[in-house]
Amino acid sequence: MEYYEESFEKKKVLITGGLGFIGSNLAHKLVELKAEVTIVDSLIPQYGGNIYNVNDIIDKIRLNIADIRDSYSMNFLVKNQDYIFNLAGQVSHVSSMKDPLTDLEINCKAQLSILEACRYNNPDVKIVFAGTRGQYGRANYTPVDEKHSIQPVDVNGINKAAGELYHILYNNIYGIRATSLRLTNTYGPRHSMKSSDQSFLNWFIRLAIDGEKIKIFGDGEQKRDFNYIDDVVRAFLMVAAGEKSNGEVFNLGSWKPISIREVTELLLEATKTGSYEFVPFPEDRRRIEIGDFWGDFSKIRSFFGWEPKVPLKEGLERTVEYYLKNKEHYWNNKH
Amino acid sequence: MEYYEESFEKKKVLITGGLGFIGSNLAHKLVELKAEVTIVDSLIPQYGGNIYNVNDIIDKIRLNIADIRDSYSMNFLVKNQDYIFNLAGQVSHVSSMKDPLTDLEINCKAQLSILEACRYNNPDVKIVFAGTRGQYGRANYTPVDEKHSIQPVDVNGINKAAGELYHILYNNIYGIRATSLRLTNTYGPRHSMKSSDQSFLNWFIRLAIDGEKIKIFGDGEQKRDFNYIDDVVRAFLMVAAGEKSNGEVFNLGSWKPISIREVTELLLEATKTGSYEFVPFPEDRRRIEIGDFWGDFSKIRSFFGWEPKVPLKEGLERTVEYYLKNKEHYWNNKH
Repeated sequence: MEYYEESFEKKKVLITGGLGFIGSNLAHKLVELKAEVTIVDSLIPQYGGNIYNVNDIIDKIRLNIADIRDSYSMNFLVKNQDYIFNLAGQVSHVSSMKDPLTDLEINCKAQLSILEACRYNNPDVKIVFAGTRGQYGRANYTPVDEKHSIQPVDVNGINKAAGELYHILYNNIYGIRATSLRLTNTYGPRHSMKSSDQSFLNWFIRLAIDGEKIKIFGDGEQKRDFNYIDDVVRAFLMVAAGEKSNGEVFNLGSWKPISIREVTELLLEATKTGSYEFVPFPEDRRRIEIGDFWGDFSKIRSFFGWEPKVPLKEGLERTVEYYLKNKEHYWNNKH
Repeated sequence: MEYYEESFEKKKVLITGGLGFIGSNLAHKLVELKAEVTIVDSLIPQYGGNIYNVNDIIDKIRLNIADIRDSYSMNFLVKNQDYIFNLAGQVSHVSSMKDPLTDLEINCKAQLSILEACRYNNPDVKIVFAGTRGQYGRANYTPVDEKHSIQPVDVNGINKAAGELYHILYNNIYGIRATSLRLTNTYGPRHSMKSSDQSFLNWFIRLAIDGEKIKIFGDGEQKRDFNYIDDVVRAFLMVAAGEKSNGEVFNLGSWKPISIREVTELLLEATKTGSYEFVPFPEDRRRIEIGDFWGDFSKIRSFFGWEPKVPLKEGLERTVEYYLKNKEHYWNNKH
């Protein structure tokens, strides 16, 4: 067991959005570390929650279906928790432009509600917030470090930036220990496979497994960075356990960026089915397209020694294997 | 008439928060420039709106009492406007900490609503948003330019930052021309004089006029910058009229910063009544105190030639003269 993993034994841990991709993977790890896990999830159909994601740990966790916008529920649920992994959110960039006020309700207002709940009911908790590289918008330089200016190209990025700032503010003003991880593209098992809204890579994985033709917008030469879910889960645990993360924000990132075309080719090697073609950007995507982007993860590396361990090829193979085995639980409700 | 002032003749102009301090002064100037002014104001008692502020132009404007959170009203009111001066907001730092969700409703959600209203009902409008130096929080360096990082020390600063980012986003994505002015301490006639919540200097002016003892928190050596209202109104008109302001944010600021103790002494010279003493910071103020702060206004100077014209001494004298003459309309409802 790693040093930081011991921090969670017999500890009470709340995961908002715990039926979603990152939340459910984190829940698995925390159950293994003997934490007392409570999951809160709204199961809003368009979002990432999937009850099957906790199928094998359902008897070892407490599952509370509720919307984080429901402040009465949250006032109760935050009580007595040692840690909160605050992952619930609306994550689609495109949806945030179609319905910006719903994005605001979930990514701004509910975050402030949760922090108010902690202020009045559990000021000793440690919270880790899931931020996003979308807060940066288009990169003025690469790799993008945490000092890069906040200039989102969609409403989601603005609301996530505000959500993060509330956390850091409550850390600084009220001593409610909080940290934000600014996530980049995360992929792996237990992601929603229902639409392309939440992550293009997981959508490509579905298409490849189904032997369909993947449509790459533009020329596919935009470079991005990808983290396998296990690396991201480890980062959440490290910053939660460490006191020096309080009030800090950290990028994640990968060793080297890769183009969208190249990652697609790697994927097709893993699936051995599917193909790809280039198509023009649809207007709603073009407007919020950010071009090359990769993050500098040297801050979290120097604070906690975190670095990505799972190579993209291996991560894609593991991911494809998972979905091939569990397809029926993820494919059933495309929208 | 200055070149930029001609832009408003016979133009339809909506001022949100138009019964407040800056909004009502702007309304006076726009009426003088022969604009067709509509004011929307909620008249929420704790905020800055005061019907007396438009007493002498009431027959020359259209007054619509409504809350900017009411999206149906806003959908109608934005139609056919050439310019929107978007000044409505909750401005108290302390209130934003006591009731952060109300601050969010007004400073985030209503802003997004107004922009959505413009997107669907008037995409050709030009909007000027009133930002604040509170978006910067404590200065990492002085004078603070627009590249300084956004690190607010209160909920109000976070929500105003989000409000500004929405405007710039809608400019960039939907072509709804928008500009933000990041205001520093603005003082002058037509400010609310009901409490110390909205601006310490106007509150000091009231106390001095009443011959009371002004309480300066701490040693009063923190340096700040102050703009007289006429200079701020001119900045709003300049950026509204100029196309090169689209998508840009601009600081205002003064030629040189001055300590809180020194500005208090200048004020007492103007009133010839009142006195001051030093008292310790109350806890809720200490936590959100930012220390020395002054802004760099060279960007708006180079874009538009704006610079502050009214010296602090003269501005204070004009302000004191105004309130001495109109005391009954501003003193009546201290809270």
